[in-house]
Amino acid sequence: MDSRSIRLAVIPGDGIGTEVVDEGLKVLQTVGPKVETTTYDLGARRYHATGETLPDAVLAELRDYDAILLGAVGDPSVPPGVLERELLLRLRFDLDHYVNLRPVKLFPGVTTPLAASGPGDIDMVVVREGTEGPYTGAGGAMRRGTPHEIATQESFNTAHGVERVIRYAFDKARGRDRKKLTLVHKTNVLTYAGDLWARTFDRLAAEYPEVTTDYCHVDAASMFFVSQPERFDVIVTDNLFGDILTDIGAAIAGGIGLAASGNVNPDRTAPSMFEPVHGSAPDIAGQGKADPTATILSVGMLLDHLGFTDAAGAIERAVADDLAERGDAVRSTSRIGDDITARVAG
Amino acid sequence: MDSRSIRLAVIPGDGIGTEVVDEGLKVLQTVGPKVETTTYDLGARRYHATGETLPDAVLAELRDYDAILLGAVGDPSVPPGVLERELLLRLRFDLDHYVNLRPVKLFPGVTTPLAASGPGDIDMVVVREGTEGPYTGAGGAMRRGTPHEIATQESFNTAHGVERVIRYAFDKARGRDRKKLTLVHKTNVLTYAGDLWARTFDRLAAEYPEVTTDYCHVDAASMFFVSQPERFDVIVTDNLFGDILTDIGAAIAGGIGLAASGNVNPDRTAPSMFEPVHGSAPDIAGQGKADPTATILSVGMLLDHLGFTDAAGAIERAVADDLAERGDAVRSTSRIGDDITARVAG
Ligand SMILES: CC(C)[C@H](C(=O)O)[C@@H](O)C(=O)O
Ligand SMILES: CC(C)[C@H](C(=O)O)[C@@H](O)C(=O)O
Repeated sequence: MDSRSIRLAVIPGDGIGTEVVDEGLKVLQTVGPKVETTTYDLGARRYHATGETLPDAVLAELRDYDAILLGAVGDPSVPPGVLERELLLRLRFDLDHYVNLRPVKLFPGVTTPLAASGPGDIDMVVVREGTEGPYTGAGGAMRRGTPHEIATQESFNTAHGVERVIRYAFDKARGRDRKKLTLVHKTNVLTYAGDLWARTFDRLAAEYPEVTTDYCHVDAASMFFVSQPERFDVIVTDNLFGDILTDIGAAIAGGIGLAASGNVNPDRTAPSMFEPVHGSAPDIAGQGKADPTATILSVGMLLDHLGFTDAAGAIERAVADDLAERGDAVRSTSRIGDDITARVAG
Repeated sequence: MDSRSIRLAVIPGDGIGTEVVDEGLKVLQTVGPKVETTTYDLGARRYHATGETLPDAVLAELRDYDAILLGAVGDPSVPPGVLERELLLRLRFDLDHYVNLRPVKLFPGVTTPLAASGPGDIDMVVVREGTEGPYTGAGGAMRRGTPHEIATQESFNTAHGVERVIRYAFDKARGRDRKKLTLVHKTNVLTYAGDLWARTFDRLAAEYPEVTTDYCHVDAASMFFVSQPERFDVIVTDNLFGDILTDIGAAIAGGIGLAASGNVNPDRTAPSMFEPVHGSAPDIAGQGKADPTATILSVGMLLDHLGFTDAAGAIERAVADDLAERGDAVRSTSRIGDDITARVAG
């Protein structure tokens, strides 16, 4: 067993966030490395109690951990955007999580809604840009509430931001069997941003002759996720397109209950943050109905990021085995967590 | 038979555009109303020959027709964005096609990639805004080609533009059996635009008490297109989200070869334009392989828009019958056109 230990900040968040994080931690504490966790109460509850979303002092503290595990934040009682912008996106932006890493993989035994696709066909990684694009919050409104209102949103794309995420994606593609990288954008309409993305992609492609490259407009890519998912190996795309594509990815790979993600700072200037792709699902919260698998797989990504490759592999195998035998049986959140924990323990 | 006649401008465009338009016209000329067509040579060929995309004089002429039928424009030999911005989007914007109407309907006999969904489950209409949002072309680049490049894209949303398209969608929903309207946006991230869309939607909802309303983030909606398409009846959404959703819609409803669309100016201050959702597909152009069905269905929408309801119904029925008996037989573009023509004639 590895003797290093992990200092982990845990943000369970709202709704099912707390439930799935409990199971993720159960698996983490069993799989190997020593873990010291500190829990941070952030999300809708704290916002309602104190008005705070992410106090500067908390953000400063979070910087000192090896990694962050997040459940889910958000509740309909909070105006749209408040927790997203001030908490979730602030973490991603301020901790420079420029790679939002989202595997889309259909495990054997999992039912996909796609009639003609099987596990061999759906096995890709989406490298979603995480710190710029249409997500910066830039924009404004004038004459709000009048018939003359104008509301704008701005997408910012920098050479620095685009190049680093595309380079990461090329490195990722080079390390995989198929070595194929697809750029997804909308260069024929978003011509300024598209031009920067496409030019940067083409320039870096020359440095990676062993990687096969490809370009797809986001509308066509969304269609191909459904009609020909086997087309894709690694995808690199902007923040908003990546948001949409990875939810389609979750759908085709067996549902949002299985979709893991990492908000990665590859330069390690701040801790990376791992979270399931799903939200806080207030409609099923507190009922033990949430599937903790996405969180458990996210814990696997966290371990992999920190160099605990064996432990990460053990989690992925335990989940794969659990999924292979899952069938239609309905198990509670904690039961699924227990079962996967038992597998990593044995 | 209706004695009015239609003055139609035809823009076959590039690649398979010309092939599918021929079949659309074949059906149109058979189905009933008298049609006078004038063909406009616009697209990649003209651009290469003369450098022109859409001369002002041509745009002015086009205003005088009852409607426009467009095949597809675009070719890899033209830099991305030139024909899209200067021709296709200029037509949509200058002719004030503020409703981009895209039915997503699975016809009996058509194979969907979704294992659990049948014709009854996939029957919706996407009302995509057509004249603003991230499609305006606003934005720019500075320090282009240097490590300090910044490229921006701006989304413009006006009370005027948002209200009119949402109102159209409410009217559309009220006229359908289920009377359900879903707003799709990303209000939790694109907070300024999202606020305008959501506020306008809620305000108009009060005027349509018989319509059930619903809101979905674009990422979740994209997922539900795959996992629960039966959720949707009428969808109203912005220009970019509508672009993406309708390609997923095409995928689940049997492929891009069947997806029809109308760029509609409901106020009739300029002619509306009908076109298949697919592009010019240079890879299969000139081989008689393109499916003209999307264009033929678009011709049906055109007739419906002009008030030739019977003729429109006849086309939809002929297509439905053809699809029901289509099976796996491979027919050429013109053969499919002939077969559907024979059905509307008989
Ligand atoms: C909650 C929301 C801000 C977030 C996003 O859009 O990135 C979520 O959808 C995700 O994909 O992690
Ligand atoms: C060609 C392109 C500009 C266009 C769009 O993005 O609207 C196309 O994808 C469509 O959906 O009609």
